[in-house]
Amino acid sequence: MTSVAATRRSRITPEREAELYDAVLQLLREVGYDALTMDAVAAGTHSSKATLYRQWGSKPELVARALKHGRPGAARGVADTGSLRGDLRDAIVHAFDDCRIEQDAALMRGVGRAAHDNPELLRALRELLIEPSIADLRVMLDRAVRRGEIRSDNPALDLVPHMLVGALISRELIDGHAATQDFLATYLDAVVLPALRA
Amino acid sequence: MTSVAATRRSRITPEREAELYDAVLQLLREVGYDALTMDAVAAGTHSSKATLYRQWGSKPELVARALKHGRPGAARGVADTGSLRGDLRDAIVHAFDDCRIEQDAALMRGVGRAAHDNPELLRALRELLIEPSIADLRVMLDRAVRRGEIRSDNPALDLVPHMLVGALISRELIDGHAATQDFLATYLDAVVLPALRA
Repeated sequence: MTSVAATRRSRITPEREAELYDAVLQLLREVGYDALTMDAVAAGTHSSKATLYRQWGSKPELVARALKHGRPGAARGVADTGSLRGDLRDAIVHAFDDCRIEQDAALMRGVGRAAHDNPELLRALRELLIEPSIADLRVMLDRAVRRGEIRSDNPALDLVPHMLVGALISRELIDGHAATQDFLATYLDAVVLPALRA
Repeated sequence: MTSVAATRRSRITPEREAELYDAVLQLLREVGYDALTMDAVAAGTHSSKATLYRQWGSKPELVARALKHGRPGAARGVADTGSLRGDLRDAIVHAFDDCRIEQDAALMRGVGRAAHDNPELLRALRELLIEPSIADLRVMLDRAVRRGEIRSDNPALDLVPHMLVGALISRELIDGHAATQDFLATYLDAVVLPALRA
């Protein structure tokens, strides 16, 4: 995910890029992925379609980058609070804002649904959102192993992404409402940390 | 989910009912929920639409009952193997057939997507599939508490449905392929039982 796209994007200012991403997210919330057109993005941001395609290559790439931009705390790195529990709680607080969680869940559900029928969108989402989140998690877990909080051969180590993503998704299916920060913090203490024996 | 529907359904034989459900599942796999029509079900099963509506009331109800019928091991109850680990492994083996898991996952994904936009379908799925599965799980967990395998105040007790449903769904999102029996058995030993301290 480096050279070509990075070179392309460097032609516009970061402020202009942020403005474009915000407009894409707004359109996604209003009309959903399928009905979002590059024409509408161009019109809403006073850009030309040619510029959009030159900068981002495709609609899936533009949407995935807008979602990455819109993730609160995306570019802040992984805080070292001194313990795995502290690191994970800090990540939850910065990744999920309860005031926005319902709205964001609806947005991600719509995009997730679209990705099932669109391999290019799925690839962009994995590359720009899922894999970097798993990498961040890996940093925290490696640190906890080095601190001596977790044994390096604990079989739950590779399953932490499944636990957290699973908690986030299953909450709505099972209980009919989106996961909150409180629910995720409870899940952390009741499931994730005991499974890691941390 | 008792009297009215039960009375309605009692007018056809169990064999005929099973045949109808199989035809509905076949159509679901072929065309998906949205494109499935009561006309197509009627034509494919040599029934009249009036009969279908009299027996099941609506398309969501018919589809949810067909899915319940198609769940392997649905009506077998909850085996008592003597331990929570045995009970849960037995449930996994009977609920998921690896040869069908990809096909079933695609089917359930399609129906799940349709349910997001269709509250009546969501209600039928919750009532006929999700809630009975959670009730089965509760039977196993209560038994494990009585056996002394789990403390009754363990905070993970209420989160077992989220762990299992989460493992099932997140596997594909994170690793790009459906959960298998082996994956679920590993998850059970690495996450569910340690969280329960069982």
